[in-house]
Amino acid sequence: MNDEKYIGVFDSGIGGLTVVKSIMDIMPDENIVYYGDTAHVPYGNRSKGQIINYVNDDILFLQKFNLKAIVIACNTADSIAREYAENKFDLPFFGVVEPASAEAAITTRNGKIGVIATNATVNSRAYENAIGRINKELTVISKACPLLVPLVENNRFKKNDSVIETVLNEYLEPLKAEKIDTLVLGCTHYPLLYDLISDIMPGTKIISSSVVAANALKKGMIELGLYGGNVSAQRKFYVSDNPELFGSKASTFLGSDMKVSVKHISEID
Amino acid sequence: MNDEKYIGVFDSGIGGLTVVKSIMDIMPDENIVYYGDTAHVPYGNRSKGQIINYVNDDILFLQKFNLKAIVIACNTADSIAREYAENKFDLPFFGVVEPASAEAAITTRNGKIGVIATNATVNSRAYENAIGRINKELTVISKACPLLVPLVENNRFKKNDSVIETVLNEYLEPLKAEKIDTLVLGCTHYPLLYDLISDIMPGTKIISSSVVAANALKKGMIELGLYGGNVSAQRKFYVSDNPELFGSKASTFLGSDMKVSVKHISEID
Repeated sequence: MNDEKYIGVFDSGIGGLTVVKSIMDIMPDENIVYYGDTAHVPYGNRSKGQIINYVNDDILFLQKFNLKAIVIACNTADSIAREYAENKFDLPFFGVVEPASAEAAITTRNGKIGVIATNATVNSRAYENAIGRINKELTVISKACPLLVPLVENNRFKKNDSVIETVLNEYLEPLKAEKIDTLVLGCTHYPLLYDLISDIMPGTKIISSSVVAANALKKGMIELGLYGGNVSAQRKFYVSDNPELFGSKASTFLGSDMKVSVKHISEID
Repeated sequence: MNDEKYIGVFDSGIGGLTVVKSIMDIMPDENIVYYGDTAHVPYGNRSKGQIINYVNDDILFLQKFNLKAIVIACNTADSIAREYAENKFDLPFFGVVEPASAEAAITTRNGKIGVIATNATVNSRAYENAIGRINKELTVISKACPLLVPLVENNRFKKNDSVIETVLNEYLEPLKAEKIDTLVLGCTHYPLLYDLISDIMPGTKIISSSVVAANALKKGMIELGLYGGNVSAQRKFYVSDNPELFGSKASTFLGSDMKVSVKHISEID
């Protein structure tokens, strides 16, 4: 029986809620406990050692709950600290990089895959490595986009906003020039930019790491005998700083009018 | 004798180097040890309690050196944690908010002062309080500008960049509408935007908290008998994460070609 057990999901901040949304869509009966490390957001410009420290603390916090699996809902954390986490903690881990890489590899027709992500994810070469393990013939062109997270966090992801459109055009220009036919949104903030990116890159297949991560999680949980929900699914949301600010933005990321009760980690119940 | 003693300067990240530049300009013989808490940058969107925790750790680190004074070279930290720091630590503290407030109060002719700053600084009402203590008749209009720090950090502070110009115009519009005649740059990142802001607000007196903070520091040190440099001034730079990234950006903020040797806090010598 997996009743009462939770899927633990963590991210540096609020972006991982796009993964939670996808999990709730396809596994509405699963308990979820979410942890956003908002005292240390953003992870994407930090060093490898620092990111590992933060991920270690994120997992230690989630372990206060009765978990059946952990989802690293942050491309930066998954890129940098996945191996560390699997070696240290005795829990099944699911991430975002491998599912998105697998989807990109079967989607591309011309063998040219673009990846947009944070500085840390790009520098880690996690997508190049994951896609290379699937098919060495594929070409991966990565582009670090350090301004997209702050722009999305400040609500600038709507059409006809010249600021986000200008920045996106600049970031995507070299990927267009390379004639990629598949683009991975390698950061869990980026699903909110899906429509804008589609307009800039018509004809390019766009893969959201958040959506494919939820699908891979379901498949993996079924394989491990962990799938199976509860009479009424529980959703808990914790952050390391500023629960009010997080709560006010959460529905944007969850894509719903769902009222989210967010607590500080000191208020664990 | 104050020989060998250091002025300790800290900020959440790299912005405080604009204060260091001003200190080096007017007090070239003083030893300076700088600490940028880059593992926790930015402070400007965090809660009061979290900012106080970080400031406490910043000061504990600087106290490993032989200090004669500490400069809080971050408007957010000075706004939120100055009182805490003065109560807890037995050192003379100098900040950025009070000098900029004093300068604004004697500069304005129409009594309308604008302040641009981070969310945390604006929410703290530190400028309203400091200017109100000087002259209750003055009106302070504050505007939180959360995108300016990430834009400056990503090198977007040059003329003819439509992104920074659009964002600045939006932020400054309500201050223009209120017909302010004096504008405080209430964040140590903002001196890099001085020329752009001057173009948008011709005729408005612009006060950089970084420049006036250095002047106030010198005056205060003379009064306390702390002023007096060394045969050859030492400058040390420490960060809590990513010394390479910090070093690559430092000369932009110091406004010089000075090569800066930056160490991680674990490498203290």
